[in-house]
Amino acid sequence: QKLAQHPPIIRAFQTLKECAMKNITIVIPDRFADWEYSLIAPVLHSFTTNYRVRYAAADLNHKTSMGALRVIPDLNFADIPAENAALILIGGQDWRELNPADRATLAAHCERQKTDGNLLAAICDGAWFLAANGLLNDRRHTGNHLDAYRAEAAYHNAAQYQDSQREAVRDTNLITAGAMAAPAFSRAVLEALGDIPAEVLAYLPAA
Amino acid sequence: QKLAQHPPIIRAFQTLKECAMKNITIVIPDRFADWEYSLIAPVLHSFTTNYRVRYAAADLNHKTSMGALRVIPDLNFADIPAENAALILIGGQDWRELNPADRATLAAHCERQKTDGNLLAAICDGAWFLAANGLLNDRRHTGNHLDAYRAEAAYHNAAQYQDSQREAVRDTNLITAGAMAAPAFSRAVLEALGDIPAEVLAYLPAA
Repeated sequence: QKLAQHPPIIRAFQTLKECAMKNITIVIPDRFADWEYSLIAPVLHSFTTNYRVRYAAADLNHKTSMGALRVIPDLNFADIPAENAALILIGGQDWRELNPADRATLAAHCERQKTDGNLLAAICDGAWFLAANGLLNDRRHTGNHLDAYRAEAAYHNAAQYQDSQREAVRDTNLITAGAMAAPAFSRAVLEALGDIPAEVLAYLPAA
Repeated sequence: QKLAQHPPIIRAFQTLKECAMKNITIVIPDRFADWEYSLIAPVLHSFTTNYRVRYAAADLNHKTSMGALRVIPDLNFADIPAENAALILIGGQDWRELNPADRATLAAHCERQKTDGNLLAAICDGAWFLAANGLLNDRRHTGNHLDAYRAEAAYHNAAQYQDSQREAVRDTNLITAGAMAAPAFSRAVLEALGDIPAEVLAYLPAA
């Protein structure tokens, strides 16, 4: 019997492989924007082998996308792992409906992700969530509309807002984009991870 | 009390509105390609008001996308409505795993859709499904690879295959595309429906 066929060794290798996988957590609100996750997630889950992609929501009830897709979340906000290669907030129509406790839990995850130097990426009203929780005050950033940011008491960084319709803005480990910039946002996130092969990035549509 | 507030009248109007809505059925295999439905579905479900978008699969167990999204289908193949403004087959990795009965049920829906003159659209291995069931033999079409079509006994129309990486091919009420042409496919499907406002189509990324 070969060593590698010995069950405890196989299990040990599986555990090692599992431990080596990097977490990607994609946060989806109800009525999330289908086009904003759809280029990033398949690359990480199906075209590379070292990422574990999971979807987090305020609760585990199914969420319905703007495209009427009914989706089962994998994680509550409370169960978002402490270590993520990327924490990604996808846009959607119900970001403003989060209750204060869920909002605080998610904001704390976002803040830790940013402070730890790991990638924090947000698009559309996902970026609005960061603005509304004071997390865009020290970085260049963009989003759907500056006016929506200005309406939030915690936001005071209009000077570093880039009005960018089809481009994402990256400042160190923070990436933001507006709803129309989903291809550029996807490319920016995947490039920032630093280990996605160029031949896989070539699949992405031009930004 | 105003007439329009009278409950039976409200119900009657709701029923009328429901009857006036056009069906869109999007067929998803297990391990479906997230980027291939994600531009079409939100336009029809959230940016216009006269379409009813539903997802059909071989059974109602959840399907997992290539992006690891767990999705609850709305319809079995048997329950696909007889009348669809569009029947759309999305690519994915498990098209070849359909059992013969499910395959026959879905192929019959596709054939009726085509014969009735309603829009039949298929991308990636969704288009392969049409080829494998002899449904591309009388129209210009494209797909991922001609070789995969030629391997199917029911396919004999290589002469009308267009080798098109980033473009969709429309021939009357049939639209096909390869995996890399999802933006062009989405635009072609939405334009073919004939009633999507130009300002909504302007949201779509360049093909």
